[in-house]
Parts: sequence; structure tokens; C-alpha cells
Amino acid sequence: MSTRQIGLIGTGRIGQVHVHNIHRYLNDHVVTHAYDPFVNDAWLAANNIVKADSVESLLKQDIDCVLICSPSGEHSKQIIAAAAHKKHIFCEKPVGLETDEIEQSLVAVEQAGVVLQVGFNRRFDPSFAKVKSDIKDKVGIPQIVRITSYDPACPPEEYVKGSGGMFFDMTIHDFDMARFLADSEVVEVFATGSCLINPDFKKYNDVDTAMVQLKFANGALGVIANSRQAVYGYDQRVEVFSNNACLKADNQTQSNIRSFTKDGISTPVLKNFFLERYKEAYINQFHAFFSAIENNKPVVVNGFDGLQAVNIAKAAKKSFESKSPVTVTG
Amino acid sequence: MSTRQIGLIGTGRIGQVHVHNIHRYLNDHVVTHAYDPFVNDAWLAANNIVKADSVESLLKQDIDCVLICSPSGEHSKQIIAAAAHKKHIFCEKPVGLETDEIEQSLVAVEQAGVVLQVGFNRRFDPSFAKVKSDIKDKVGIPQIVRITSYDPACPPEEYVKGSGGMFFDMTIHDFDMARFLADSEVVEVFATGSCLINPDFKKYNDVDTAMVQLKFANGALGVIANSRQAVYGYDQRVEVFSNNACLKADNQTQSNIRSFTKDGISTPVLKNFFLERYKEAYINQFHAFFSAIENNKPVVVNGFDGLQAVNIAKAAKKSFESKSPVTVTG
Amino acid sequence: MSTRQIGLIGTGRIGQVHVHNIHRYLNDHVVTHAYDPFVNDAWLAANNIVKADSVESLLKQDIDCVLICSPSGEHSKQIIAAAAHKKHIFCEKPVGLETDEIEQSLVAVEQAGVVLQVGFNRRFDPSFAKVKSDIKDKVGIPQIVRITSYDPACPPEEYVKGSGGMFFDMTIHDFDMARFLADSEVVEVFATGSCLINPDFKKYNDVDTAMVQLKFANGALGVIANSRQAVYGYDQRVEVFSNNACLKADNQTQSNIRSFTKDGISTPVLKNFFLERYKEAYINQFHAFFSAIENNKPVVVNGFDGLQAVNIAKAAKKSFESKSPVTVTG
Amino acid sequence: MSTRQIGLIGTGRIGQVHVHNIHRYLNDHVVTHAYDPFVNDAWLAANNIVKADSVESLLKQDIDCVLICSPSGEHSKQIIAAAAHKKHIFCEKPVGLETDEIEQSLVAVEQAGVVLQVGFNRRFDPSFAKVKSDIKDKVGIPQIVRITSYDPACPPEEYVKGSGGMFFDMTIHDFDMARFLADSEVVEVFATGSCLINPDFKKYNDVDTAMVQLKFANGALGVIANSRQAVYGYDQRVEVFSNNACLKADNQTQSNIRSFTKDGISTPVLKNFFLERYKEAYINQFHAFFSAIENNKPVVVNGFDGLQAVNIAKAAKKSFESKSPVTVTG
Repeated sequence: MSTRQIGLIGTGRIGQVHVHNIHRYLNDHVVTHAYDPFVNDAWLAANNIVKADSVESLLKQDIDCVLICSPSGEHSKQIIAAAAHKKHIFCEKPVGLETDEIEQSLVAVEQAGVVLQVGFNRRFDPSFAKVKSDIKDKVGIPQIVRITSYDPACPPEEYVKGSGGMFFDMTIHDFDMARFLADSEVVEVFATGSCLINPDFKKYNDVDTAMVQLKFANGALGVIANSRQAVYGYDQRVEVFSNNACLKADNQTQSNIRSFTKDGISTPVLKNFFLERYKEAYINQFHAFFSAIENNKPVVVNGFDGLQAVNIAKAAKKSFESKSPVTVTG
Repeated sequence: MSTRQIGLIGTGRIGQVHVHNIHRYLNDHVVTHAYDPFVNDAWLAANNIVKADSVESLLKQDIDCVLICSPSGEHSKQIIAAAAHKKHIFCEKPVGLETDEIEQSLVAVEQAGVVLQVGFNRRFDPSFAKVKSDIKDKVGIPQIVRITSYDPACPPEEYVKGSGGMFFDMTIHDFDMARFLADSEVVEVFATGSCLINPDFKKYNDVDTAMVQLKFANGALGVIANSRQAVYGYDQRVEVFSNNACLKADNQTQSNIRSFTKDGISTPVLKNFFLERYKEAYINQFHAFFSAIENNKPVVVNGFDGLQAVNIAKAAKKSFESKSPVTVTG
Repeated sequence: MSTRQIGLIGTGRIGQVHVHNIHRYLNDHVVTHAYDPFVNDAWLAANNIVKADSVESLLKQDIDCVLICSPSGEHSKQIIAAAAHKKHIFCEKPVGLETDEIEQSLVAVEQAGVVLQVGFNRRFDPSFAKVKSDIKDKVGIPQIVRITSYDPACPPEEYVKGSGGMFFDMTIHDFDMARFLADSEVVEVFATGSCLINPDFKKYNDVDTAMVQLKFANGALGVIANSRQAVYGYDQRVEVFSNNACLKADNQTQSNIRSFTKDGISTPVLKNFFLERYKEAYINQFHAFFSAIENNKPVVVNGFDGLQAVNIAKAAKKSFESKSPVTVTG
Repeated sequence: MSTRQIGLIGTGRIGQVHVHNIHRYLNDHVVTHAYDPFVNDAWLAANNIVKADSVESLLKQDIDCVLICSPSGEHSKQIIAAAAHKKHIFCEKPVGLETDEIEQSLVAVEQAGVVLQVGFNRRFDPSFAKVKSDIKDKVGIPQIVRITSYDPACPPEEYVKGSGGMFFDMTIHDFDMARFLADSEVVEVFATGSCLINPDFKKYNDVDTAMVQLKFANGALGVIANSRQAVYGYDQRVEVFSNNACLKADNQTQSNIRSFTKDGISTPVLKNFFLERYKEAYINQFHAFFSAIENNKPVVVNGFDGLQAVNIAKAAKKSFESKSPVTVTG
């Protein structure tokens, strides 16, 4: 496989995670340049990354692809800029915030003929990927798709304030997973939610507990349950059912030892959070990205997938506000 | 405990099951008389039960209580008749079909001072009962209640035709379970459904696959998933979550042996259907019924519980037809 | 099936259990007469059983079969007496204490042409029976048979004193299970043991913790682990392995609910003891016994099975005392 | 932590695995020089490793420690040579073949004041390490230690011929694990075995199926079950029991998805073999090794541990040949 020189836009937490994973686990490839208005020079130096002064200057470097890990509101225009420079693009979710901007960016990508992969890493989780690959043979056409997605700890109010709301911040991963597993588009959403953990979230018209019901184009039904806090760990499950079979990917505990005492039989709590739970998924998504570039093959999560997740999140928010089911446009 | 003489109204399948269980497992008590317009004399004889010519004549016998196992449309008037004769009443679900009739029957019961227990047997399933009893200490106030209820095999079209629809025929058990576990009233229902197994059910405006979302008075969220057919057995699960804990009652397999081969690790399918899965629940509900009579204590499933399940089923049907969330009256 | 009139010899705990099970679950059959030098008249009356003054007088009654639930030392001669009266015989384990006496009793049974079934009830446990029936198709010829058999609570010293030692009192069930599952005779035993729970058991040359290694005639290997106390419940497992497959019957917990908290994920402890754990086995063994009589078919546990378990127990005791492997005679 | 320069003796499979792991996962440290009479130059070059012409010449390089991955018969003298050059030593199991040679090498290590860690990697498996660390609090003093260790596929006859026999080649890991978990020395071994998979192994007085019973100094009992082939994957379990509690580390399946069909409920087979199953253990043992050097702390697996495993294996072989229990010397 050809070695890829990579530029990074945004050197916050997730950008640093990607650099770490690429350098350790995909070491044919290397992140050589980075731009961030608040970049940490020490971190750059420790990773042998050259600082760029702007997105434009970054895109003029000798790089094959860019990782867009900047704030969500900048994604669309950065995708357009990268496409203009014929760079392959890995863009964190959400692919953008506004439908029209996203659509423009997808046109730019199409015209430039570059690869665009969106960071819905969970599709690359070995368990969920195996569920997906077994569906056709075992389940046939899914009739019911159920997703459980609970975070281990409630975020601080400050985070919630700027998060865009639970449906955009948290459920968006689940919307993508629902489409991925159902293999049919979501046509209708009905979302309910409550503040049952932290009543202060109401100030931002946000919730900490939600249930989102989905109807797919083929008549299949779906539901996503969300909570901002499950004290027993990061609860991440999927279940795909038809009257012929059911496939379940259950949680992963911190170890597989069982303790038998007079009080009961116990196992450790679940893996704690996404960097631990989805460790392999974060690595695998880059194997897939570079492989798509190398072999000129379609990516597993393309720009349209990114757009649709945003459209569903918008419908969910509207449903929650209007207390009625909402048709997904797009 | 005093021996109870029991009269039976309706000698169909479920009536016969109750007689079998009472005679074998609660043998302080005995079913002595029965009325059914289509009664099977041989079955009566084999069980030492005397035939009555009418409900009225049955109620005049020397019996302490009656089991109402007749068609649903007759329940309310039979409850009223039994109350008039001061008989304690065990009534199969649904407690009635029309809200006003049900309410009249509950007034009659109240005035007569007799015991009325409704046949929501699942509350007496040892697993579900243990979940219920552990909620207060472990979960606190439930925030999310999820119920899975899939039958093992799709019923014939003829059955579906006269069933009253999936929400009344099948989900009604789950509506009761949801109230039981959430310990809060259902205030809003949003029901969707599809015919994905047998398209012929559409003729009756019925579905074979459904998802019903619930909102409880205290803000908690619920969801019920239903399918008329899960080929791997009778899939019956509940899960009660708060941010402090989660309790799950998982399915019961036909045995607990595991087979390890080159093709994987496998266990037998689930218990097949309700008489097998809820065997203990059917027995336990009569222990509870006779104990309530004996000790003059409240029953675990009273007439109001029976009424509320009907009200929720009505709301679900209306929601499905109107494609919008419906407030539960009552 | 013909109704069987049954005589009972020995009205202690296990005899009473059998009467309860037969009257409740096999109600085509009835225990009509009983003999015990210390019989409880109230219990007899409550069960409609007529007292006999001696074994001889019991055997002269109008009965088809006898249940021998007397002290172990009397089994052989009572079997001979029952055979002389042409009664079918269910005999509790052990079938006798001395090899020559047992052999004489088996000759008597053979000559009388009556049915003799020995009370190794665990063969009738649904899980273990399913393992057995699946072995041929899945495992083929077993290569390793492993049995775990831990009691929930250590017996009092007084019980241990008169128990005949752990290998006769407790492991004898496992010796039978090992032969049953391996489908090959045990040819060599190596037994070790320690007093790790109650050092007072040393007074009686007994142990509370034991490990017994078995070699089967076909070269297969076996091992039985025993403890007088597992605080988490009655630990009863079998595992049958060949290089082609492995079958495991795991323990049964008191319920199948799981509790997820910050401290871990827990299930209830195991079923507490034999009357609970082997409830179905106790019933099923009588279905099988009466069916063998009715249909003139071989029993599942015959006199030779009873004899071999005793021979293995003797070899185990000798191995423990001599600290060397011992060949099983018989 | 200081960067360590490392020399490698023996560039076969396991040596290459260690280099890969150190360079990828412990990248403060680097293997700089290697000796092997049959060294692969391309592999050296690809890993930036300089070839040494002999063990002596390797030991004269600027290295802090050596990894001994040569044939077992050379371990003792290479340990002595490395100690003479004051190099810290990681030595693959077995630490040597002959008791007296091993003892001499341990004296040399002691006198040189260098660190010696033996390659019993399983102690560093997260599950087994967690069992170990929980024993004191939960189990107290172990009374029964049981180990299952089945390989996924039978090795070819040629391998078996030169393997030193199953007890030295395969069970030696389990002997170490037994000592580790029991926290008491093995004082007596009784080993049985059969050729049930490949009868040709008898030519070498070897077996493919074995059961080894252990008695520990404190009276606790142990047993190890071995098979050269379990078609369902690499079966690696431990179970530590006292009458107060039991800790079990169960197998790891290839994924945690469950498939529910009419034929049953199935999960994938077990992880296939040691590089997959013990991936983390192989990495963790080097974290521990370098940490012990850095902090001048005792290693988790020292030379005495290496010696004792050999002594137990010798006793097991002798027991198998003499068909009697054998006292472990040492």
C-alpha cells in the first residue's frame, strides 16, 4: 500500500486520537502537517508534525489527504476547500450542520473525484460490523432494529449548552447505525425525551433521556434509547430482528471473570467509554479509508450517509419540539 | 387456609388450564361447578365438575368464587352478576371491552365488597416479580422501561380476524407490565406497526409487527416491541433502567446446556409458548388470589389495573390509526 | 397406563419426598402401605397410607411395587425379600453396602423377573439427560468427562460421623454420573482429599474437599471435584469433551434477572439444594420407573449400575487411604 | 522511563513476536542487535536490527538486556553468559531443561544482581491477573484450583517428536498458573494421559489428552485438563474455589454477537490460538519486565518460578510413566 502523507485540521481531542492511532497502528501512513488556530506546539513537536498557518496553507503542502476534526460548523467549507485541492478527505461527524451547505460540499467532492469518508466509527466496531455482515444470510430483511446507547456519565451543563442538543450530539451516531443495520432509509421519526438526571438541561431545551422511534422506507420499525448516564458503564447494544432470526451485539465487560459469593454471581462493569469501547473501531475506520483510496473503491460511510444522519437528527429535534412524528426530508 | 369452592364460567382452553393448575397445585381449593354454552361433558366428568345451565344458576351454587374465562365481551356483565351474588371474582384479561361497562362493573365489585383479580398472569412470573421487587432498592425511580414480547408463531388469519387487533390481543399484557414496572401511569402512547410477516392481516387493519412508545406521568419513557413470530421461541424480556442501575429479566432457554463445536457455541432455543414460559406465573396468580381472599388484602392486579390496560390499548389503536401520539384517558 | 399400588419401606425424608411427588405428579399411582420401625402415624394418616408391621407383612399386601428408602445396610436383603414376592423395586442409592450381598440381590431380581431401578435421580435431570442424549451425535466418544459437585453447606459433624465417608455419601452420585456420561466403565480411580473447611472431620478419616481422577476402559479420562460447602449455592455441573465438541450443563441460578450497578453486573446465587435443583429429576425418575414396568422395558439405572457405583466408591476410599491409584474390581 | 537497548538471542517465531510487540507497544525500548545461527537477514533489516555473530559478541554490544528465545537446551548457559555481562534477562519458558543447570543459572543471576524474568506470559493475561488479584479478598485461601487448557488443533507428529512431551511442552504453562493461583507450592502430582486423537503419538511415549492432579503444600487440591485439540477454539479457563467464593475466568469468543434462529442461540467460536488469545499478555509481560528493571522491583515470574514449573513437569512425566503419584522435589 502507498504511504499517505496526511494533513490534520483541528488538533483537539479527537484529532489527537486519530494521529495516535495512525502512527501506531497504520504506520505506512503519517500525519505530517496540521492546522489549528489554538494548536499545541509541544504536541506537534512530539509527533513530528509541522504547523500550518491556515487551512489554505495546509492544503498546499505535499499531502494526499486531510483529516477534518475542526468544529462542526466549519466542516462543509473545509470539505469544499480540500476537494478544490484534490485531497482525499476524512471528516468527523457531523459532516456539516446545514443541509444546503452539506449538499454543496458533496457536489464539490463528487466533481473533484476525491474520496470522502465520514467519521461514523461505530460501523467499524468488529461486533457491529459482524452483525451487519450476517444480516443478509441470517435475518434476511430486518423488521425491527433496536439500539441502546447510554453514556457512562452525564456531561457538565457547560458542555450540554454548546452541544447542539442530544439528538445532534449523541443520537446522531445511532441514526447512522440504524440506517446501516436496517439497510433502508428512515422515513419518519418520533422523538420523546425528558430531563430525569439533570433538570438544568431544560434551560437549553435539551433532554438527558430520550426515546426515538423510527419508521423505515420498507415498513421496518426501529427504536433508539438514549441516556446521558448509565453508572454501570458505556451501554452500547444493537439488535436486529426478523421473524426468521435475531442478531444481537451485547455489551463488553471490563473483563470476563465471574465472582461467585453468597451475595450472588457478578461480573465487572462495562467498558467505560468510547475510546476504550470503540478502540478497534477507531483504528479500523482508517484501514478502510486508506484502503478505499488505494483501491479506488467506495467508502463504507460516504457523504450521503453523513447528510442523512443530519437530516434524521433535524427531524428528531423537530418531532421532540412539535410532539408529533416528522417525515425525514432528503 | 380455608378451602374454596369455585365456579367456572367458560370452559375453553384457558379455563381448563386454570382448573388443571388449581386441582394439581392448589389442592386446598376445588372447582366444583361450571357453565359454558358449549361445555364438554367428558372434560367435566373427568374433573368432577358439575354442569350449571346458566351463569345465574352457577352463581346460586355453594361456591365462594368464580373464574370468568368467557369471551371478553361478556366479562363486564358477568362481573356484575357475580358481585351481586357476593362471589369473589377472578376475571381473565381484558376485564372488559368498553370503558363505561368496565367502570360499572368496578363499582359493583366495590359495593359488594368482593375481591376482583384480573388475569395479568405475567406479574406473577418469578423473574418479572423479582425485577419489580428489586426496583425500589436498586433502580429507584425507573427512567426507561423496555419490553420485548414476540410470539413464537404467527396465528392463522382466522384468529387475527376476531382478535380485536394486536394491541388488544397481544400488547395488552405488555401495557399492564409497563405500568407495573414503571410504577407510574401511562399518559401518552405513540404506536406504529407494519404487516411484514403476513400481508393478509392488512385486510383487518391489523399488523404483525409493532412498536409502541409510552410516556409516563413522571416523565419516564417506555417502549414495547411486538412481533407475531420469532422462530427461535417465545421472546419475553423486560428491562428497567435509571441512571443508577438497570434490571433485566432475560429469556429462558429450553435447557441450560451449551454445545461447543467448530461452528460455534450454541444453546437451545427459548421456551416455546406461554403455557411453558409462564407455567409458574399461572399457578402463582391463584396462590395470590386465594391469599388475598383469605387475608382480606388487596390483590396484585385489581379492576383498575384491568381498566387502565384497556384504556392504553384503545389509545394505541387510535394512535396507530391517526399516525400521531394519543393521550390516555382514564 | 395401569395404576400401581405401591408399598414404602422407610418413611424418612427421602421416602416422604417420593410419596409427595408420586401423589402430586404421578397421580395414576398411589402409595398405599408403608413400613418403618419409627413410622410417623400422623404423616401416614395425612397421606392415606396404611401402616404395615414388618417388611414381610408389607410385601403380602396387594401392591405392585415397593420403594426401598430404609438405611443402606438393609437394602440388599429387602431387595431379595421383595423379589421373592415378585414386587417391582425402586431402591434408593446405594443399592447396598457389600459387593457380595449386592450381587446376591441382583441374582434374586433376575430370577424373579421383576424390575429394579436404583435411585440415581440425577440421570433424570433434564439438563444432564439432554447432555447424555446429545453425546453420540455431537461429541462422539467422550475423551474427558468432568463433574463438579459441591454442596451448599457443610453438614454437622454428627452427620459426617455416620455417613460412610464423603466418597460413599456424596461422590457416589458423581461416580454414577461419570459412568453414565462416559459410556465406558471406570477401570481406575485416584482419590485425594483434605479437611479444609472443618478440621474435625479428620477424626473420622473423612474429608470435606476431594478430587477424584478416573480412567475409563476406553482410555477416556475423568475427574470429579467435591466440596462440602459452596456458599453461593449447590454447584452441579457436567462437561463432556472430545476433540470434536464439548457439551456443558451449567448451573441453574435462582432467577435469570441481571442487575447492573456501579459495582458490577450480578445475578442471583445458584438454586439452593437437591430438592430444588433436582425437583424435576425426582419426578422424572418415577415416570421412567412406572414406564419400564408398564412397557416391560429396561430401566435407565439398573442394579448393575448400582453395584458399579459402590465398587468405584470402595476403590476411591482405598485409593485415598493408600495414596495410590486403585483398580476398580467388578 | 529510561529507553532500553535490547539484544535478542533466537529469531524464531516467538522472538519475532516479542520484537514486534516491543517496537509497536513499548516504543520507549528498542531491539538493536540479534544473534541466531539461522538468522533471517531480511527480517533483521526490516526491523533495523544489527546482526551479531555469536552470543558472546551480542553480549558485548551496548545493550541493557537480552531476550533469550533460543532452543530450550541452551537457556541455562545463555542466562549464565548474560549474567556475566550484567545484562538483564528475559528468558522464554522453560527456563532450562535440567534442574542442576537451572539452579546454577539462578545463582549466576543472583550474584550478578541482574533482573531475570521467565516467559510465563499467561500470568499477565488481564483476566487471569484479575483473578489472582481478587483471590485474597474474595476467595481467601484457595481450596480447589482447576485449569482447562486445550489447544485448537493437534500438532503434526514431527512437532510432537521433538516437543519433550506434552507435560513439558504444553502443561508447563498450566503448572505455573496453578502455583500462581494457589499461592502454595505443588507437593505431589498424579498424571494420566491417553492418545485419543492421534494414536501415532504413542511412538514417542506421548499423549494427546491428559489429566494432572495436584496437591499443594497447604492441602489444597488442583487439577489440569489438557487436550491437543478442541475444534471450537483455544479453550483456556481457570477456576479458583474456596468454600467462601469461587472466581472463574471464562473463555473469550471471537465476537460477542449472538444469533437466534430456529436451530438455537449461538455465539462464535473461541479465539483461535495463543497469539490472539494472549495478545495483551505478551505485551503486558514486557511492560512488567521493563518496569521491574526501571524501579528495581521483583519480577512477577522469577527464576525460581521457572525452576518449579520444570520440577513439576518432571514429576508429572515420572508419574505418568510409573502410574503412581510422585512427590515434587525442589
